[in-house]
Amino acid sequence: MKADIGVTGLAVMGANLARNFARNGYTVALHNRSRARTDALVAEHGNEGTFIPTETLTELVENLAVPRRVLIMVKAGQPVDDVIDQLVPMLAPGDIVIDAGNSHYEDTRRREAALAAKDLHFVGIGVSGGEEGALNGPAIMPGGPKESYEALGPLLEDISAHYEGDPCCAWIGTDGAGHFVKMVHNGIEYADMQVIGEAYDLLRSVGGIEPADQAGIFRSWNSTDLASYLIEITAEVLGHVDAETGKPLVDVIVDQAGQKGTGRWTAISGLDLGSPIGAIAESVFARSLSSQSEIRATAQQVLAAGTDPVATPQDADRDAFVEDVRLALYASKLVSYAQGLDMLTAAAAEYGWSLDLGTIASLWRDGCIIRADLLDVIMKAFGGRDTSRHPEPGTTAEGQPSNLLFAPEFRDAIAAALPAWRRVVATAVAAGVPVPVFSSALSYYDGLRRDRLPAALTQGLRDYFGAHTYRRTDREGTFHTLWSADRSEVEA
Amino acid sequence: MKADIGVTGLAVMGANLARNFARNGYTVALHNRSRARTDALVAEHGNEGTFIPTETLTELVENLAVPRRVLIMVKAGQPVDDVIDQLVPMLAPGDIVIDAGNSHYEDTRRREAALAAKDLHFVGIGVSGGEEGALNGPAIMPGGPKESYEALGPLLEDISAHYEGDPCCAWIGTDGAGHFVKMVHNGIEYADMQVIGEAYDLLRSVGGIEPADQAGIFRSWNSTDLASYLIEITAEVLGHVDAETGKPLVDVIVDQAGQKGTGRWTAISGLDLGSPIGAIAESVFARSLSSQSEIRATAQQVLAAGTDPVATPQDADRDAFVEDVRLALYASKLVSYAQGLDMLTAAAAEYGWSLDLGTIASLWRDGCIIRADLLDVIMKAFGGRDTSRHPEPGTTAEGQPSNLLFAPEFRDAIAAALPAWRRVVATAVAAGVPVPVFSSALSYYDGLRRDRLPAALTQGLRDYFGAHTYRRTDREGTFHTLWSADRSEVEA
Repeated sequence: MKADIGVTGLAVMGANLARNFARNGYTVALHNRSRARTDALVAEHGNEGTFIPTETLTELVENLAVPRRVLIMVKAGQPVDDVIDQLVPMLAPGDIVIDAGNSHYEDTRRREAALAAKDLHFVGIGVSGGEEGALNGPAIMPGGPKESYEALGPLLEDISAHYEGDPCCAWIGTDGAGHFVKMVHNGIEYADMQVIGEAYDLLRSVGGIEPADQAGIFRSWNSTDLASYLIEITAEVLGHVDAETGKPLVDVIVDQAGQKGTGRWTAISGLDLGSPIGAIAESVFARSLSSQSEIRATAQQVLAAGTDPVATPQDADRDAFVEDVRLALYASKLVSYAQGLDMLTAAAAEYGWSLDLGTIASLWRDGCIIRADLLDVIMKAFGGRDTSRHPEPGTTAEGQPSNLLFAPEFRDAIAAALPAWRRVVATAVAAGVPVPVFSSALSYYDGLRRDRLPAALTQGLRDYFGAHTYRRTDREGTFHTLWSADRSEVEA
Repeated sequence: MKADIGVTGLAVMGANLARNFARNGYTVALHNRSRARTDALVAEHGNEGTFIPTETLTELVENLAVPRRVLIMVKAGQPVDDVIDQLVPMLAPGDIVIDAGNSHYEDTRRREAALAAKDLHFVGIGVSGGEEGALNGPAIMPGGPKESYEALGPLLEDISAHYEGDPCCAWIGTDGAGHFVKMVHNGIEYADMQVIGEAYDLLRSVGGIEPADQAGIFRSWNSTDLASYLIEITAEVLGHVDAETGKPLVDVIVDQAGQKGTGRWTAISGLDLGSPIGAIAESVFARSLSSQSEIRATAQQVLAAGTDPVATPQDADRDAFVEDVRLALYASKLVSYAQGLDMLTAAAAEYGWSLDLGTIASLWRDGCIIRADLLDVIMKAFGGRDTSRHPEPGTTAEGQPSNLLFAPEFRDAIAAALPAWRRVVATAVAAGVPVPVFSSALSYYDGLRRDRLPAALTQGLRDYFGAHTYRRTDREGTFHTLWSADRSEVEA
């Protein structure tokens, strides 16, 4: 009996994916650099399905049905290249090597090209949902050659999460497209968490609402259009009391946020692509700032607040304030999704991918960290899930909005939220509560909709000091004013 | 007679630097890929000093005194490597190759290492000030091996701008340090221009002040602590009337700002280094957004403003508003400088450079685009210009503030500006005027000074969904709450 798939790298993510395959009826060959993990997995979970433990990569490959499917789940970076280098000589044309780790999409592009030259399929897949998701159904974003999806897709779709019957897995696009989309998912996740943090800070610092009471508020928000996994667990975390001190746990946790790099990667890619993704970048910067512990300690002693006392809203006013904050959170969240999706459009043009935004949104409806019913609405705004109808690279399919905010439901939702959003940012600014994403998202929105931007002045200045030229609103061409001569205009 | 320095690449920047050397009494050997430029330079400006025109790189090198100094001024990227590859076999140990272009500091690090292995000195120098500066005195930021500065520094200092007798040139640090510091200069320049743009937009959209009147305002601001080249030329640009239409030129220029990449590089480096440089990044994003012409055109038709009419301030109120905007501009500007300098400190630790922030600020006092008396104040806040006193990499020298905002003069200036800054951002938000940098800078300030940030909640959420663990405020260690079990806490 040959295995349907082989998994090498059996730390918790790899082990859980292997078990997920086995639970879905697939025969899974197992390999790990040290045999102990393989044995432990079989000993503890061997009853969940059919496993073939192996001692070496060679043995793993020998035990696979053709075309061979080998899933690698090792630390991103050099370890992935090392495993690939060992595997390649053992494989035959048409075999599929899958990297399910958090690899950078540029690495995936490089590896895909190298293996394609050897008639092997290399598939980078983004997997979101953490350990729990890997075991019970993650969102899966596979890239790589489309033909590989015929042999691989059904297995991935079986182990993925499902939303109303649809698997949260579909082919994304060639080479690094899967890992790119997973990266952007994580960038959006950073923004999602930051806007929740800003809302929490405002409710507490301005609204005077303690974490236990906020737990109830977030729980109630989970029945609104904010409904999502992250809102749900915010209620859980805020409601949790530290057993040791009796204080809210959130007050006991050091307020320095860590990061593993994918948010940073997203912001860097946005810059590289020329996509304005301020809400995502500000989320990354907010974490960096929080971790500057020494500078913050000095700042707390040295820097003035310069705030007028802001009255804590009472009773009916308090309810209105809470609702304002909810609307500001929702509008800011929509902007960060618009920015992430806009960046996908730019990447499609840059890398020659044909990304379908409706399908991508559909994969995020369940299984992943940003899972939410909102993604179903976004999916529909982009014409639904249709894996056959990929637009040309860099274009939007017919009828798709060129920006998420233009979809009628979101256009109207933001229009309704705008007065509250503006009030909340103004209040935060007066009260000295930092709202980097609420305010960045609002600047993005206002920047998009304004008919004239001060970028015209920027162009004038650049022409003055660097002869960078400018265009005119009233006719074609490129122009330069002779600033240090008679200030006449010449065509450049 | 041998030349003191050779210049290859005689487009306008290279030609102007060559003339600048010659005007300062140095004999300059000239080379260009096509001979015509060399001849033109000698024909037009040969009377300015002593030039030795040459036909080939070999001839250029043969005409140089030892140690040979060859300055390359060609397009950044592969062309620089091509010239280096040709030069290296002609040179002897101790000779100095200078790249004066806008190279990425990582390229400079690579090239320096390669040439050091051949006992050659490679010096990447940042040159700011445009064509005009190159001819009459730019700010110069040389990196590379310190010993090379003995043979090269005096020439560079002679051709540089001078501020109260001090040359705007000093050795910055090893390998890519010079190009890195030049890059950050440009990032700060982006922010400088963006805050000017936001002020202009507010004065016009809220204050109702036309460009011609704003020219006078900016001219008067140039006698305040805002005094700087960019403020000065803003007055010139805003005061300029388009001869063709009779309108203010700024109204005729297409409001889409271009960029050549160094601002983007700065933002990317900030992300890589984990430095919170939101003000600089938002400046880059503002330019990207301005250039999304199709999306903006749709947005103007589709997106609601959601603003209440904001009354245009009249008379005395108008003067107060103008002063508020000036203070907001100044505070935001200081934050962008603080972020840029903070990033230099992070880079020093990362790359093993011993950067002296006082000396770096001193170089920017004249010659470059961000030149301003403010840089003299910043220099003094960091203990003055002292090229001998380089701190250990990654540390601040004794008595230096760990953040620009902690220097007493800036701490006090911001404290005085805070009420106005908060009012201006609140007004902009209500009026729908995008102020991405005014507001990002304020969030940075408030984030630094607040004793608790919602990053604690972020850490709680990360622990919930990904077992990323957290630290406690009351004791050492790393902890995890068993969220899906009994919610007890374990040490991780």
